Amino acid sequence: MNYKNYPMVSRVVFGRGSFNQLNDILAPKRLNAKAPFIFLVDDVFKGNAWLTSRISLAYDDQLLFISADEEPTTSQVDELVEQIILNHTDRPSGIIGIGGGTLLDLSKAVAIMLTNEGESKDYQGWDLVKTPAIYHVGVPTISGTGAEVSRTTVLTGPEKKLGINSDYTPFDQVILDPELTKDVPKDQWFYTGMDCYIHCVESLKGTYLNAFSQSYGEKSLELCKEIFVDGDGSEEELQDKLMMASWHGGMSIAYSQVGVAHALSYGLGYLLGTKHGLGNCIVFDHLEEFYPEGVALFKRMKKIHGIILPQGLCSKLDEDEFNTMIDVALAMEPLWENAMGKNWKQTITREKLRALYEKM
Amino acid sequence: MNYKNYPMVSRVVFGRGSFNQLNDILAPKRLNAKAPFIFLVDDVFKGNAWLTSRISLAYDDQLLFISADEEPTTSQVDELVEQIILNHTDRPSGIIGIGGGTLLDLSKAVAIMLTNEGESKDYQGWDLVKTPAIYHVGVPTISGTGAEVSRTTVLTGPEKKLGINSDYTPFDQVILDPELTKDVPKDQWFYTGMDCYIHCVESLKGTYLNAFSQSYGEKSLELCKEIFVDGDGSEEELQDKLMMASWHGGMSIAYSQVGVAHALSYGLGYLLGTKHGLGNCIVFDHLEEFYPEGVALFKRMKKIHGIILPQGLCSKLDEDEFNTMIDVALAMEPLWENAMGKNWKQTITREKLRALYEKM
Repeated sequence: MNYKNYPMVSRVVFGRGSFNQLNDILAPKRLNAKAPFIFLVDDVFKGNAWLTSRISLAYDDQLLFISADEEPTTSQVDELVEQIILNHTDRPSGIIGIGGGTLLDLSKAVAIMLTNEGESKDYQGWDLVKTPAIYHVGVPTISGTGAEVSRTTVLTGPEKKLGINSDYTPFDQVILDPELTKDVPKDQWFYTGMDCYIHCVESLKGTYLNAFSQSYGEKSLELCKEIFVDGDGSEEELQDKLMMASWHGGMSIAYSQVGVAHALSYGLGYLLGTKHGLGNCIVFDHLEEFYPEGVALFKRMKKIHGIILPQGLCSKLDEDEFNTMIDVALAMEPLWENAMGKNWKQTITREKLRALYEKM
Repeated sequence: MNYKNYPMVSRVVFGRGSFNQLNDILAPKRLNAKAPFIFLVDDVFKGNAWLTSRISLAYDDQLLFISADEEPTTSQVDELVEQIILNHTDRPSGIIGIGGGTLLDLSKAVAIMLTNEGESKDYQGWDLVKTPAIYHVGVPTISGTGAEVSRTTVLTGPEKKLGINSDYTPFDQVILDPELTKDVPKDQWFYTGMDCYIHCVESLKGTYLNAFSQSYGEKSLELCKEIFVDGDGSEEELQDKLMMASWHGGMSIAYSQVGVAHALSYGLGYLLGTKHGLGNCIVFDHLEEFYPEGVALFKRMKKIHGIILPQGLCSKLDEDEFNTMIDVALAMEPLWENAMGKNWKQTITREKLRALYEKM
């Protein structure tokens, strides 16, 4: 048995208001006046001086507002990289992603593609990246995906929705400032939080589980319950807790893997562009067979927070479309193996997945 | 408020038998044939082929067996560094510490002192190290101290017992193989495990606590209870859990601090050479006033495991000796501030500490 040698985030700051330290953290990392810092910022913060006034731009630094309405794509990464290369004579001093999982994944991918040749779709998979990425910093402004701590960056490519999983993917620096999550709309807060909850359930119920993943997963799950079931604490305390739940949840899948919900959600995301958090919720709602307790608690949390999930997403799909989703989902072999064991192919048939998708 | 920018361990492998991966992990880190790997190994493993046969020495690599019977000292670090410099023309490719907190702390300190001038006592304190350490790897063979994950290395110097706290202290690589802890004698297993338990209590009851430290500390404490109170799991599962408890416990004090027990234990350790784990137990046993619940549970765990602590350590000390211990303990200002708040000097008097030490 060969165990993964997991690359951790190099540095982490935690605390309400810690975002104020961003400029001090970046200053010593500036290579020269021509090597800019590129800030990729969720465009919900456009015109939000409370956040943007704390990013000081010097020399050729650039701030790009990017919409997170759609899941990040390989072509979007390639365009950003091209734009950065064309606009600057020197390679950037660093990429700083400020936003949710979409912005964090984009930033990780851009940092990698600035030092690796070809197109980002060529790197979708495991350990295909050969050259270290440039310095990259993650600042989550919504909690749940674990993108701030993971060694992957999930991208929708022309052929598949799959992460660039590599030792060079994790951030060199993460700033965990729970205050930045204060204005997340309730639906998004719930969906993204449930992304964390769901991958804890998948990790803890998986066959890959070991004591490392279990200890992180249990703590994350416990925090999710305190937040979404008990509402245990002030608004600020709940923001703090969710940021830590996301962090620990991300670490939990370091040594394990997600499962059925994520596999099916990748299919939905690939075909319909369904956002990851929402997609996971839609899928997980129908997975009693695989995760009976986890789904029961999920339904309870939905009720507590008055969340109504969209219905009938797959009601008008044709044969080819179902097949596309099923192909994408079945391709996620490590996820199925984690969920069902080595003989997963005996029970996870195309018909089974078709029947599940038809319910959604 | 300025939050710490915490440096994390760069890479971690977890799993039973993962120690077999040591040579593969080191190979790409060899700088050249003259730059050896230096293995600092607890001398309890002398003649233990089960462990040592898995360390392959090439070129000028050197394996030094070191006794952990005494707490590590600054002069021991300086001697090791001198010996390494005299024996090799090139600076080592890396230092690999294999053992408990003593060996891990020695290894971190040696790695630092190979690139920093002067004596190690000059670096006891906070952020005095200016040059990055050489590549260093930690392989814990006993769990509890958190030395595998912390940014400090506690040394007894001529003037004080204090850590080299720096951004360059943490290991570049940690191998967490719980199987390596299988032969730890019961007393030592208990004392070192209690080091973890005690710093969780100190962290969770401290004024420095935030959601980051709390989430790690709570998980670690929960694991300690599963291990030492409930005996929840097979022998192997308990080893796995204690290794994770130590890891999370170490992370918990990253953003917080230890407290009264550690401050007093440093005094004992400095004057009498009491080993850290045992010293913490002896001290904590008398701290009902500060940690009523934590001490009650500690006494219960002691009883469950039939542990009898040494008594009367301080019964024959003279005035000067008491004063020395009190001086060392009082110098740990951040620990007292964490435990008692900013006005700690109003309640923590020399007389108070004298009375506490007299009980031990």
